Amino acid sequence: MTMHSFTELLKLFEEKFNTRQFPQQPVTLYDPAQYILGIGGKRIRPVCVLMGNQLFEEPGADAYHAAAAIELFHNFSLIHDDIMDKAPVRRGMATVHTKYGESTAILAGDVMFVKAYENLNKIQPANLQKVLFLFNVTASQVCEGQQLDMDFEQREMVSFDEYLNMITLKTSVLVAASLQLGAILGGAGEANQKHLYEFGKHLGIAFQVQDDYLDAFGNPEKFGKTVGGDIIANKKTFLMIHAFETALPAALAELKSLIKNNPADKVEKVLQIFRDCKADDWAKELKNKFLHTALKHLEDTAVISSRKKPLQELADYLMMRES
Amino acid sequence: MTMHSFTELLKLFEEKFNTRQFPQQPVTLYDPAQYILGIGGKRIRPVCVLMGNQLFEEPGADAYHAAAAIELFHNFSLIHDDIMDKAPVRRGMATVHTKYGESTAILAGDVMFVKAYENLNKIQPANLQKVLFLFNVTASQVCEGQQLDMDFEQREMVSFDEYLNMITLKTSVLVAASLQLGAILGGAGEANQKHLYEFGKHLGIAFQVQDDYLDAFGNPEKFGKTVGGDIIANKKTFLMIHAFETALPAALAELKSLIKNNPADKVEKVLQIFRDCKADDWAKELKNKFLHTALKHLEDTAVISSRKKPLQELADYLMMRES
Repeated sequence: MTMHSFTELLKLFEEKFNTRQFPQQPVTLYDPAQYILGIGGKRIRPVCVLMGNQLFEEPGADAYHAAAAIELFHNFSLIHDDIMDKAPVRRGMATVHTKYGESTAILAGDVMFVKAYENLNKIQPANLQKVLFLFNVTASQVCEGQQLDMDFEQREMVSFDEYLNMITLKTSVLVAASLQLGAILGGAGEANQKHLYEFGKHLGIAFQVQDDYLDAFGNPEKFGKTVGGDIIANKKTFLMIHAFETALPAALAELKSLIKNNPADKVEKVLQIFRDCKADDWAKELKNKFLHTALKHLEDTAVISSRKKPLQELADYLMMRES
Repeated sequence: MTMHSFTELLKLFEEKFNTRQFPQQPVTLYDPAQYILGIGGKRIRPVCVLMGNQLFEEPGADAYHAAAAIELFHNFSLIHDDIMDKAPVRRGMATVHTKYGESTAILAGDVMFVKAYENLNKIQPANLQKVLFLFNVTASQVCEGQQLDMDFEQREMVSFDEYLNMITLKTSVLVAASLQLGAILGGAGEANQKHLYEFGKHLGIAFQVQDDYLDAFGNPEKFGKTVGGDIIANKKTFLMIHAFETALPAALAELKSLIKNNPADKVEKVLQIFRDCKADDWAKELKNKFLHTALKHLEDTAVISSRKKPLQELADYLMMRES
């Protein structure tokens, strides 16, 4: 059996997925739903389903159904999150609610969620209950993570453990569940399912730590977003939380004042406080700790190591390491 | 096997359902979701699941799981519809978005939808795929109906067929599917499933015709809402559509002027136009036509007629007839 790279699996997935996923009528509902699927995205989660699956078998119809369900669920959550976050733009394009109005965006998300379950229901009955169970738990967790994220915006600060829990729910469990769904469909045992889940979960957290780091210390030319964007927006990040937990009293007072008063030199001064409490080095170590745990779980997955190469390459790609 | 009345089945359902349906944490997400379940509702749809089921067997655990899923889905759609309709009050209580904010209301709806699927996934695997298929189709239709309802608000008028289709999708298919889900779980054949579905669908439409009629011509003391509320809000109703389709040119011009200018005597004058084109008699006949079709499908359901008594009583109750 040939192992497919991420790029090959992405191509195979998109050949099936880049067709209209919805009925034609009513166009006022289904065109907005189709619209967000058309503005791209890296399709990491559905490809994770296929990668988790091909550890155990050549990906078949059921793996593609689960992959489509995951991508539809992900886009459903993006549509609703963008409404809550009042985000005007995603992937350089107008968000669904900006283009079609909030009411339609709510409904387009809802019907996309139903379409995710329609795809799951194409899976052969022997695996359906297990797949639905994991999918439902994960979907609830993603909602919980989004709610916690909104709750945290109302607070001056949150603890490291609270933030880690929120980020795990909001972003990492879906990657983890994607890999496990593929493994379930491939007939993997529970130990292997668990290792793949933990690989995905820890890789997702490592990615988020890196994302927070790059927002503050990234190379503006390589990093896609405005450097310092999180600082300007007063977002809680791993760095900000570390600064709040470790800065000396004078620096902490300055940090609170900067957050409150938003002076012109805010980014520069917050970055200096981050450097003073070594939040940059700490974040790099934290990322490596989660990455290491992720790779350990991949190592402990009981399939021959040559089959794991695509997943190792995914980790390298997400961690921007030269492989 | 004893047949249970609507009231008995309602009591049995509520004994199970009137407990917390959600985890405790995060309370900011799950208390809002639990809140709407606590403000009541007639629970007609879940009891329809049980009534459809008891035509064929004593309702067991799976029927209650499906009933809970239907009620959770219904409340999910209410939460989201109330946001779209900017409705401040439901069942005499603040709507979820009014009490907890729109973002939380979107998410509380989403997580309630997941909880509906969690309940479906407790159904024994042999029936799971069939149940999910009907549930998914119906959920999509309810979303489509809500979108069409919003689309129609932007138009001067819609045709009878368009309105009937919208109302069927938005309100009737869920009652129909509830009955059919109960029948599926009871092992009913496809012909009986179809008859029960059509019974529920036509009964739901008859109820909507009656609702539109009572809003205009109901006894203010018996009808729960403000009489003329639909006229004041310029809502398309069966009566208004009939008036647009049958009124003489002068009356039609007056109707359009009343809608545009909202004078103080608008309700009175619109009612007179309705009476002049006999929209009241027409609506009564239309309701009876749908009720008759509904009852014909119940009659054609191949179970002994004594078992159908609770469903006949439901029709009498919804149609406010003395049984």
